[in-house]
Amino acid sequence: MKKKISIIGSTGSVGKQALEVIENFRDRFEIIALAAGSNAELLKEQSKKFKPKYICLGEHGIERICMDKENDIILFACSGIVGLKPMLTAIENGIDIALANKESIVLAGDFVMQKAKKHGVNIIPVDSEHSAIHQCLRGNRTKDIEKLIITASGGPFLYSSAEEIQNATVKDALAHPRWDMGKKISIDSANMTNKGFEIIEAHHLFGIPYDKIEVVVHPQSIIHGAIEFKDGSIIAQLGQPSMHIPVQYALTYPERIVGIKSNSLSLSYIAKLDFMKPDFEKFPCLAFTIECGKKGGTAPAALNGANDEAVMAFLDGKIKFGEIYVIVKATVEKHAHISNPTLKQVLSADKNAREFAKMLILNK
Amino acid sequence: MKKKISIIGSTGSVGKQALEVIENFRDRFEIIALAAGSNAELLKEQSKKFKPKYICLGEHGIERICMDKENDIILFACSGIVGLKPMLTAIENGIDIALANKESIVLAGDFVMQKAKKHGVNIIPVDSEHSAIHQCLRGNRTKDIEKLIITASGGPFLYSSAEEIQNATVKDALAHPRWDMGKKISIDSANMTNKGFEIIEAHHLFGIPYDKIEVVVHPQSIIHGAIEFKDGSIIAQLGQPSMHIPVQYALTYPERIVGIKSNSLSLSYIAKLDFMKPDFEKFPCLAFTIECGKKGGTAPAALNGANDEAVMAFLDGKIKFGEIYVIVKATVEKHAHISNPTLKQVLSADKNAREFAKMLILNK
Repeated sequence: MKKKISIIGSTGSVGKQALEVIENFRDRFEIIALAAGSNAELLKEQSKKFKPKYICLGEHGIERICMDKENDIILFACSGIVGLKPMLTAIENGIDIALANKESIVLAGDFVMQKAKKHGVNIIPVDSEHSAIHQCLRGNRTKDIEKLIITASGGPFLYSSAEEIQNATVKDALAHPRWDMGKKISIDSANMTNKGFEIIEAHHLFGIPYDKIEVVVHPQSIIHGAIEFKDGSIIAQLGQPSMHIPVQYALTYPERIVGIKSNSLSLSYIAKLDFMKPDFEKFPCLAFTIECGKKGGTAPAALNGANDEAVMAFLDGKIKFGEIYVIVKATVEKHAHISNPTLKQVLSADKNAREFAKMLILNK
Repeated sequence: MKKKISIIGSTGSVGKQALEVIENFRDRFEIIALAAGSNAELLKEQSKKFKPKYICLGEHGIERICMDKENDIILFACSGIVGLKPMLTAIENGIDIALANKESIVLAGDFVMQKAKKHGVNIIPVDSEHSAIHQCLRGNRTKDIEKLIITASGGPFLYSSAEEIQNATVKDALAHPRWDMGKKISIDSANMTNKGFEIIEAHHLFGIPYDKIEVVVHPQSIIHGAIEFKDGSIIAQLGQPSMHIPVQYALTYPERIVGIKSNSLSLSYIAKLDFMKPDFEKFPCLAFTIECGKKGGTAPAALNGANDEAVMAFLDGKIKFGEIYVIVKATVEKHAHISNPTLKQVLSADKNAREFAKMLILNK
């Protein structure tokens, strides 16, 4: 029996890699639907090749895909909160989720996870760090977890001074040493906001309190994540810094199949793995993002909205790299925090934060 | 319900550590029997403290313990082939095995594993490397394994020249940088024979062919073992180089409980993990031991018998460190190899090899 899959965001980086995996295992997978935001040309090409039941361009129609119970699993590889409502629909329809859409969990992790539990739906993370932890948890019990360990490459500014970081150019900030990613996430990685998002994500996905999630800087990006268990034993997942492994893992789980490329890793060839503590002073966005996660309620939504605007402003040359933090912090601190928001209030907090951040940027 | 445990070799290094684990969880464990080779004093002391149903000094009586179906699990922490027959008896009686007795598997792995399969008995390894692999395999399927990775600290002679190794003193050879162990196993570690034994053990325990088991030298001894799966993902187990973790793991499996000491490991404190290929030329015992494993039949038994004698002779100052290899190799090559031996023939091969090796040592 073929596994029936839809991909939301098929023309993005993760979506394309998922189709590369699927292409090599046509006997294992059947594509139900492909959805893309705007790249009509590539979507058409993908459609010819994979012959999905239907395709969808733009936001309209995603909801429809997520109501199709023929899907065994839907890969959410879109970015932004556009994925949130369709994801909740898919969960209500008992469809498993391969999760590469960070925002849905950062903003509305409580809603998503509660619904997944209620409907007995698996949420299999695609982010390399969370995929690592998912793999390390296999065959173990969540209650035996002492601590989650999420590694961070440290990004392009690991060895830069605070001042250099403050005034970094767009080109510098986009030059991620290990991962080839989209612009937005590259900037989020450069100031470690992305690592903060990942901690919030891990908190929700695995149900672990924030004080038991540790970030370790690991420049080689070979260990992607680990779990320390109560008995002192640490289980870690290692792999080449390629998204193929976690994408394939999520699509084939609980099975593992031969990788599409030679991703084999030789420890003796790598020779050395380094680890260090993150520098929260040089990277205030990391500490602040975690703080927003701990605060919960609408704080992560306000953070996300403000950060989106600030990153865009930086990429457009309107603000300095270091000012992303200033704008995000000011916006979150000014926003009307709600501790136990409805989903609508969460989305409003995100929207309002965007307006507020835009205003701050304009008035600079 | 308490878990009912017996320990064969309770006064040895692993046996004592097992009792330290049990002492802290008296509500979880009940000791059925303790058996020691010769340390009557300590056995008496342990008996007072843990109040086993019965104790046993010397070889006689071990068989009796292994027939007692009240045991949930028996820890074989004795050294030498004295453990083999009682282990087979325990398996026939459906009692799980916590395995710290290397010889039984090296000599008679086929017999032990076949019987365990037949009787549905779990064999949970206590060696840190095999415990690591056991932990990494949890929740995964053996058929998804691409490769087993067994780490080696490299021992006291990692950075020595071939000539320095050849002429190493007893004191040098006993000075293991990471693990505090008995004399025999320290010597086996110094020339890497022990790592070869571990490969033979891994081959039997996990049913993986020799060409899919790799030794990686890792001086810090933090990663104890790992599995590379077919999809390119590597799952590794990390921990302080202490036997408490694997001993406790074997006794509490499938549960994990809080460790008896603070074994918690900080990657950022450790800062660096190094890996390199083993040097088979400087450590010919490693290559030869693996070769004996591949040859199978009576070869590992002949190797074990000859090695026991050669190591004793070295410790007694009768031969050079480098001559252990010469004697072992000559003995194995001279022995009358049987490809599909009976258990009796295996034991004879060990015995005959001892005689032959003794003769070689005398005639030096």
